[in-house]
Amino acid sequence: MTTLARTARYAKRTAHLRASTIREMLKVTQQPDIISFGGGLPAPELFPLKAVAECTAEVLDHYGATALQYSVTEGVPALRTWVAQRLTHRLQRTFAFHDTIIVNGSQQGLDLVGKVLLDPGDYVVVANPTYLGAIQAFDAYQARYLTVESDEEGMLPEALERVLAGADAPPKLVYLVPNFQNPSGSTLRGDRREAIVRICERYDVVLFEDDPYGELRFEGSDQLGLSSYESEGTVIYSGTASKTLAPGVRVAWLVSKDHELLEKIILAKQGADLQPGTLTQHIFLQYASRNGGVEYEAHIARIRQTYHRRRDVMIGELAAHMPPQMHFNRPEGGMFLWAHLDGVDTEELLKISAEQKVVFVPGVSFYAERDVHDGMRLNFSNASEEKIAIGIERLAGAVKTYLQR
Amino acid sequence: MTTLARTARYAKRTAHLRASTIREMLKVTQQPDIISFGGGLPAPELFPLKAVAECTAEVLDHYGATALQYSVTEGVPALRTWVAQRLTHRLQRTFAFHDTIIVNGSQQGLDLVGKVLLDPGDYVVVANPTYLGAIQAFDAYQARYLTVESDEEGMLPEALERVLAGADAPPKLVYLVPNFQNPSGSTLRGDRREAIVRICERYDVVLFEDDPYGELRFEGSDQLGLSSYESEGTVIYSGTASKTLAPGVRVAWLVSKDHELLEKIILAKQGADLQPGTLTQHIFLQYASRNGGVEYEAHIARIRQTYHRRRDVMIGELAAHMPPQMHFNRPEGGMFLWAHLDGVDTEELLKISAEQKVVFVPGVSFYAERDVHDGMRLNFSNASEEKIAIGIERLAGAVKTYLQR
Repeated sequence: MTTLARTARYAKRTAHLRASTIREMLKVTQQPDIISFGGGLPAPELFPLKAVAECTAEVLDHYGATALQYSVTEGVPALRTWVAQRLTHRLQRTFAFHDTIIVNGSQQGLDLVGKVLLDPGDYVVVANPTYLGAIQAFDAYQARYLTVESDEEGMLPEALERVLAGADAPPKLVYLVPNFQNPSGSTLRGDRREAIVRICERYDVVLFEDDPYGELRFEGSDQLGLSSYESEGTVIYSGTASKTLAPGVRVAWLVSKDHELLEKIILAKQGADLQPGTLTQHIFLQYASRNGGVEYEAHIARIRQTYHRRRDVMIGELAAHMPPQMHFNRPEGGMFLWAHLDGVDTEELLKISAEQKVVFVPGVSFYAERDVHDGMRLNFSNASEEKIAIGIERLAGAVKTYLQR
Repeated sequence: MTTLARTARYAKRTAHLRASTIREMLKVTQQPDIISFGGGLPAPELFPLKAVAECTAEVLDHYGATALQYSVTEGVPALRTWVAQRLTHRLQRTFAFHDTIIVNGSQQGLDLVGKVLLDPGDYVVVANPTYLGAIQAFDAYQARYLTVESDEEGMLPEALERVLAGADAPPKLVYLVPNFQNPSGSTLRGDRREAIVRICERYDVVLFEDDPYGELRFEGSDQLGLSSYESEGTVIYSGTASKTLAPGVRVAWLVSKDHELLEKIILAKQGADLQPGTLTQHIFLQYASRNGGVEYEAHIARIRQTYHRRRDVMIGELAAHMPPQMHFNRPEGGMFLWAHLDGVDTEELLKISAEQKVVFVPGVSFYAERDVHDGMRLNFSNASEEKIAIGIERLAGAVKTYLQR
């Protein structure tokens, strides 16, 4: 019963599990006097509380016990049809009911794809920086990572091809967030999209298009998705209700023309948690379908406007208060702005800024090799315009303190 | 791009994923003219539809956006406290907030425990027959199984000890369902409980007490749980809201005094799906707490009475219509009755009975080695008394047809 015996109990994969800086931060920053640019939280004041209560009553009235009973692993059929129709419209390619499955938030989609594709040591190709949650999901399957150079317009196709050609074993998966990427806010340039699809097709590597923010464009014009292109290879699209209704309902979807892969994902999901929540699937579908979808569209438009204004305030305040060492981008949608502070270790900066009651996520967490230390992710969706102004001023104070050390 | 290349894509563990007969059956038996004793579905007419709608409105009114926002991986704190208090009462041992975490249905608890404990080839010790969902969850981690002899009063401690002593590698996990087991309906005898805890303690093997049905006792008297006993070893308790409120909310919990293990499970859950559903956790807690818990207790009492009557009807009809080849038990709670039909292959019988519009789950699915063919699991919670009577008569007709072939 020694400590050593205890340690030997755990599976080898547990050595690869790391806590998310962001989830840990969520705990700390629930203090009301802290201004947080850290989490990826939607604006809570936009949640349609009354409509969700009404939709729940409608669903229980209309579907009765069915809305609370066990249901099929793949998801409620009517919701799968809704997803197929919406993507057919958004991606300008026909998707059908059978191309879709429902999962508990897009994080589960990442986990299940990892579960069916990755053996220990398999390579996953990611942008640099990349979404931390993807790394966390794939870490549980003991993945290794190959990083591809990205610029302000996303992953560079020629760099991707170099990585695939040079790998000492064929990578299993290419993962990217094409729209308003987490963490960098950058959007993959239109002509790079098909190029990346064709490269993955040629190397027969599964392409994962993670698109939680695609509906949140407030500037510029929509691009086709990676999944818009016909391909002999496998492309998986991931979308979610977390950013357009609310994360607390845990409704998201995976979409692919590769039905063999979807079947394996469904089997894996059966063993993992049987099914997505019956009630919340119905609630989301009811909300999204109200008044022929008009209410949902109006709601998303309101989210876009709000985030647009908040981004503008953040950019304005950064320009006004930050020293010349700071460089930041101007995302056309989504929830995150990305900044570099020349010569600054942003993990060190966070310690100072937390004392001054403002937090952000140090960029290092998003680099698979944890080798870039001057980046920072600033969320602009969660705090009000007023709080953004105060928070950026506080942050500028912390930067000043850091630089004068 | 050949089929061969495609097959090589998938992780080795996918070869171990098997479809659940029961989940597959769920699809087929949603035809209204079929009487199903197959699934493990609660009685839908007891779901408190109106109360769930009211609780949702109350929760959204009282907690506002918090009820729809991201929340912590371990679960909503107030719900964790509720779980600790309820188990303190039920198990007659003090449990605290920090001993609990919330998961999306108890299937996820099984998956996460498998994820943190099992390397490929590790042994899991199970009763024979055992719950199919556990096998499914552990299969994804390429577990091997050791089966322990059980009788009408559950797993035999001396048989467990023999298995642990004889294993060629130390098993990682002992899994059992002490109350009204799925599939057999049997309950682990009181004196065997502490004996099993002590054996697992001595062999330093984690003990998983899966207790989805414990609150559904309608005859006899409650026993202490395995988790009621102080132990130097690790015991994990799993409970759920699926059988006392509804499965469609996907709220369940894991409880253990081993906080190191819980921490690893939380990390694994972060990567798997970030968190349990915020809204449904609040809805369940609101329902369970209404009128100081009086409404919830009355609801569970109603479930118990209903299942009691349904079991009695099923037993009465079996006694009246079945040939002497059939032997069945008399479970004191839960949702399942277990039967053997001497000399009958129940998978073959199912084909005949399905034509006669009645289905059940052939017992073979519940044996890890798939070596017993004459068992059957009959669910008595889902169908009305009238339908149970008709269904058992149909089933008796199918048995007659089978025996006269």
